[in-house]
Amino acid sequence: MPAATAIIKPRHPLDTFFSPDSIALIGASRDLEKIPGRLLSMLRKNEFPGRIYPINPNYSDIDGLKCYPSISAVGQPIDLAIIIIPARAVLGALEQCAAVGVKNAVVVSSGFAEEGGDSAAMQDAMAALAKKTGMRISGPNAEGFYSEAQRVAATFSPTVDVKPDAPRLIATKQRIGIVAQSGGIGFAIYHRARALGIALSYVISTGNESDLGAGEFLDYMVQDASTGVILLFIEGIRDVGKFLAAARRAAETGKPVIVTKVGRSGAGERAAASHTASMAGWSAAYDAVFAKYGFIVSNDLDEAVTIAAVLTTNPMPRGDRVAVLTVSGGAGIWGADTVSMQGLQVPELSAPIQAEISALLPSYGAARNPIDVTAQGVHSGGLQKSIDLLDVSDEVDAILVVLSLSSDTRMPFKRAELKPVLDAQNKPIVFYSYTLPSQFARNELAASGAVVLSGLTHVGVAMRRMVQRARFKLAPPADAAASLPDISAHLKSAVLSESESKSLLREAGIALPDEILVTEKSALDNAIARAGFPLVLKIQSREIPHKSEVGGVRVNIATKGEVFLAYEALLESARRHRPDAEIQGVLVGPMAKKGVEIIVGTMEDATFGPMIMVGLGGITTELFRDVVYRPAPVSATEAAAMLAELKAAPLLNGFRNAAKADIASLSRLISQISALAARFRETISEIEINPVLVHPEGQGVTIVDALVVPKAR
Amino acid sequence: MPAATAIIKPRHPLDTFFSPDSIALIGASRDLEKIPGRLLSMLRKNEFPGRIYPINPNYSDIDGLKCYPSISAVGQPIDLAIIIIPARAVLGALEQCAAVGVKNAVVVSSGFAEEGGDSAAMQDAMAALAKKTGMRISGPNAEGFYSEAQRVAATFSPTVDVKPDAPRLIATKQRIGIVAQSGGIGFAIYHRARALGIALSYVISTGNESDLGAGEFLDYMVQDASTGVILLFIEGIRDVGKFLAAARRAAETGKPVIVTKVGRSGAGERAAASHTASMAGWSAAYDAVFAKYGFIVSNDLDEAVTIAAVLTTNPMPRGDRVAVLTVSGGAGIWGADTVSMQGLQVPELSAPIQAEISALLPSYGAARNPIDVTAQGVHSGGLQKSIDLLDVSDEVDAILVVLSLSSDTRMPFKRAELKPVLDAQNKPIVFYSYTLPSQFARNELAASGAVVLSGLTHVGVAMRRMVQRARFKLAPPADAAASLPDISAHLKSAVLSESESKSLLREAGIALPDEILVTEKSALDNAIARAGFPLVLKIQSREIPHKSEVGGVRVNIATKGEVFLAYEALLESARRHRPDAEIQGVLVGPMAKKGVEIIVGTMEDATFGPMIMVGLGGITTELFRDVVYRPAPVSATEAAAMLAELKAAPLLNGFRNAAKADIASLSRLISQISALAARFRETISEIEINPVLVHPEGQGVTIVDALVVPKAR
Repeated sequence: MPAATAIIKPRHPLDTFFSPDSIALIGASRDLEKIPGRLLSMLRKNEFPGRIYPINPNYSDIDGLKCYPSISAVGQPIDLAIIIIPARAVLGALEQCAAVGVKNAVVVSSGFAEEGGDSAAMQDAMAALAKKTGMRISGPNAEGFYSEAQRVAATFSPTVDVKPDAPRLIATKQRIGIVAQSGGIGFAIYHRARALGIALSYVISTGNESDLGAGEFLDYMVQDASTGVILLFIEGIRDVGKFLAAARRAAETGKPVIVTKVGRSGAGERAAASHTASMAGWSAAYDAVFAKYGFIVSNDLDEAVTIAAVLTTNPMPRGDRVAVLTVSGGAGIWGADTVSMQGLQVPELSAPIQAEISALLPSYGAARNPIDVTAQGVHSGGLQKSIDLLDVSDEVDAILVVLSLSSDTRMPFKRAELKPVLDAQNKPIVFYSYTLPSQFARNELAASGAVVLSGLTHVGVAMRRMVQRARFKLAPPADAAASLPDISAHLKSAVLSESESKSLLREAGIALPDEILVTEKSALDNAIARAGFPLVLKIQSREIPHKSEVGGVRVNIATKGEVFLAYEALLESARRHRPDAEIQGVLVGPMAKKGVEIIVGTMEDATFGPMIMVGLGGITTELFRDVVYRPAPVSATEAAAMLAELKAAPLLNGFRNAAKADIASLSRLISQISALAARFRETISEIEINPVLVHPEGQGVTIVDALVVPKAR
Repeated sequence: MPAATAIIKPRHPLDTFFSPDSIALIGASRDLEKIPGRLLSMLRKNEFPGRIYPINPNYSDIDGLKCYPSISAVGQPIDLAIIIIPARAVLGALEQCAAVGVKNAVVVSSGFAEEGGDSAAMQDAMAALAKKTGMRISGPNAEGFYSEAQRVAATFSPTVDVKPDAPRLIATKQRIGIVAQSGGIGFAIYHRARALGIALSYVISTGNESDLGAGEFLDYMVQDASTGVILLFIEGIRDVGKFLAAARRAAETGKPVIVTKVGRSGAGERAAASHTASMAGWSAAYDAVFAKYGFIVSNDLDEAVTIAAVLTTNPMPRGDRVAVLTVSGGAGIWGADTVSMQGLQVPELSAPIQAEISALLPSYGAARNPIDVTAQGVHSGGLQKSIDLLDVSDEVDAILVVLSLSSDTRMPFKRAELKPVLDAQNKPIVFYSYTLPSQFARNELAASGAVVLSGLTHVGVAMRRMVQRARFKLAPPADAAASLPDISAHLKSAVLSESESKSLLREAGIALPDEILVTEKSALDNAIARAGFPLVLKIQSREIPHKSEVGGVRVNIATKGEVFLAYEALLESARRHRPDAEIQGVLVGPMAKKGVEIIVGTMEDATFGPMIMVGLGGITTELFRDVVYRPAPVSATEAAAMLAELKAAPLLNGFRNAAKADIASLSRLISQISALAARFRETISEIEINPVLVHPEGQGVTIVDALVVPKAR
């Protein structure tokens, strides 16, 4: 790194980790078949430009390098120690490193937290050492890292083995950075990206994360100028605070993060719980955090790499209109179908541009979109000229070129014509080959700055994700919740009834219907006068959470006589079903006006804390799983964005000529509930508003039922 | 073909097409850069074992072969003529072929129906010639076909160009046959399948289908013993009868068909309408036909090829329990997630088998499932032995092996150990590499009979599809509809009211509530006596299809006085909203008991005729698009299978402790309605039962509203 840069930009604490001037290899070996030997061999094959100090008391030299008996024998500053010795010797080696001022260590050795017991204790000691000395430790049980730009191959992964007969293909304008909680997968992402010609900044396998975690590595990639797009592979986040800060920074700076989160299924979770000793956590909470920060979720390797390829070679689109350009009718139809199925538009082009394109094609070509230039149109230059035209047209926002690029000798483009267009491209131009692309075609298009993609659905997904990412805006922070009143008086019992829950919500400033808890018959007249007909009566008891099941709810009561009868009947029925339940009384309130039935709830995630949830009410929530989560608190703006994500969103937006629902009021309520859950996370475990009825625009919402669950103490 | 076979098995009419003894190439050329020259060159490079007769009056010989001035100059029997001459000369050439008894022709030339006008007329003449003479014609505008087993490269596709440095990899036990309505795509499927080591019987590009269509080619593949799995690429079927017969035969014989149908989106349909002059048709109808015959729908090329790879190398699974076996913890979790997300099970293994597997692994391995044998477990033989154990275990039905197969020199298996297991495998064993597999690994595993797969989601989908295919049973035919009475008297007007529609349905034997059309007030007393309280009143007019919109429906009427008031009010309201509408009267009937709201409908598809549809009623149908179609008629058994496909199926199966719904009665109704639509397809355009309420088991269904739309004459 030139000194000038160092002056302008303060060095990141992990700069010496990823770009070390000197590396000590503790446990270096001459046996290239084994991992210690491969570590040294990889470092040298990749031409690490700094100093390497092999450490092994059994050798005086390895492969022409002087070998030291111990780290203290080196007598030179060391930026990074790579440690690959038996587990029980690791802590001692780390202590020696810290003693001589080694800045960073990567522990490749296994046999720590993933084995439990004493082995886990050794890892804890490692973490404590890092904390005490300031030396940063990655691993143990890590596959190390690789920096392509700095030529640091601090890993034994065979994917960084340099092969003289396979020159590095570089097609992308930007580099990707990879952070993976699995060495196998992290380097597999690199292996696949490399084959497509995607340039790399760093790939890091985080191992057991005794000290350095995925969150801190994410932070490094976010601030690193050489990294354009980040790929994350996550089992479970440990350094949550650092992760969230890095995620926010990525959102603020607009650096795309593509994330794969595994351990989503029962079997996956079971495995993740033991593997690298992490907890997979609750996927919905992870997805909520990803959504908040605009992360692009992809649960397929090739899809993730395809998204990365598209993002590293293209500007962001300004809209969702795609031109599909092809040389084969059937493939063009498939391309148009595929992007359409992703929700993108494939609009018919205007007559003027159709005429311009048609002039370039034979009579059996098609210019409407998809545009079939035909094989003949390639020979006559129609393909290239169509790209030129579409790139400057304001009728489309992206171009998908669907070709056969299997030939080892022929290309449908001339480099001299294509490269200038791609160098100055106005919109994404994506190249897909329906036959398997040849290496020749990959090399040729790479020279023009394009990646040849090979999975059509992945391409469709990548284009949709790109459009979504271009539209993403980080939601404004929720209003400060500090102004919330003290509600602790409402949280004295372990369980709250509906009436008590509603009192708490009222205290917190949430609007609720005027309901009266009637504890004796004589109070009914007054309650009727306040609520007005028609009425609802509901039994209240902390021990009866499901009121309907004990015949504890009566709706649509229209006369005074019925009220008295219903009151008696409710009490009688509750006593019969639950003779031991302590009855608080009967809640009397007005029937709610009609509205769209919505559920709002909060719950606590073990990793990310309080979460807010909204879904369509009734049977639909459970049947179609139509719910959206976010970390709490959310602003009303963010709540409105959550509502827009519901499949049932049309119901709120004037479905079948119905009035539009009061989304503003509902969003405000969601924001309020989320603030309450966040502010009182120490004392409130869950809030459930089920249902709230959303009335037509301007007419607000009505909370019908509510339950607040205090936290067990 | 040996004579013995010919005696046992009658020759298929297309045998001489796909396995010709002699080929005439009309329009042969010496210029290998152009398509006519490439056709000859491909035939010879692929070592076509029969006789080749180049036809071109300009040459006496081409490439060492005697060249004839015309087809009649050959003087020998010709099984197949490949024609590549200007469009306007094609018909004449075909006539000459027919005159000398050529059995089959492939017309590669373009410029026919896809250009419209006179060119389309030439194609019609071609079809007429085929019909008149019995000579079968494929194309025009076709890319021809390739038979790998018979070495017939009747195509100019570069994908059949033989490359000496790329020996053919064969991994599969069975061959695939490909029928494609796009030459580019058909040969692209072959190109990708070939790279995986999937053996091929035939790939045929059907072109404009003047005579031979996709349906007839499908039939050939279905009866062809050398074809194990069929891949179809469809824009729109023309020879519908042949297609359906072939589809049924495939279902009956259990030969899997993987189908891609394009032209599903607006843009795709727009393009398909002009491309090869076909109509894309209504995708839902295609999907209904595919579902009926157990076709495996795949709209991604690699996914389709992955499914083919899995099917051609494995026996069918007996259940949906998958063991995920891996050498990398993270990759194993991802594998378990992926198959779980597809709805397959990844069960925890029993203690005994876990103990057996654990004994093969180091302490940090995992045997619960996913099974992480670790890199160490590969060296010690634990991977191979785990496969052996799981293949004979009754705890799982399939094995997914998740590996890194990027090495050019090392393999985690010994061929001598793996091959015997795969030769005698009891269940599907699927191999996926998270790094890009090397050619070395592909070759090694191919030698044991396994394909290395590279897309994890595609693998998950393929395993799900395989389980579904194994469970598929062709539905029994619907009951003969011949017994339906003559309902023509009910179809005299162009539009039917609800009351008239219901009369028609009653006549056809469908149970409906006892409702009375009241035309004068004096008849109300009698109607009340018959229906009983509570009542429903509905205005009846052919001109008022949407009764609610004119205030034409009153429900839950409980007293005589209300009935009379409602009667007057309905008539008044209808007259006010639609002064010109002819009012037939007011339909008086009992309020229906509660039930699950279902829609049943029929409509006519231009390609496949009458279709039956069922969906969850209310807003949900439209919002969540939860509907299932089948070609009509369906049996009650098939109707029940349709219901099981609904996302809302749980609602019928005792959702949230509700009673199970009377699925048997609903299935019977669907079957009856479908039979009616099929039997009277000439006179009925649509039937809509919306809603029918499904009561608890044993309590039947109640049709609330119904509309029959006669066909315009």
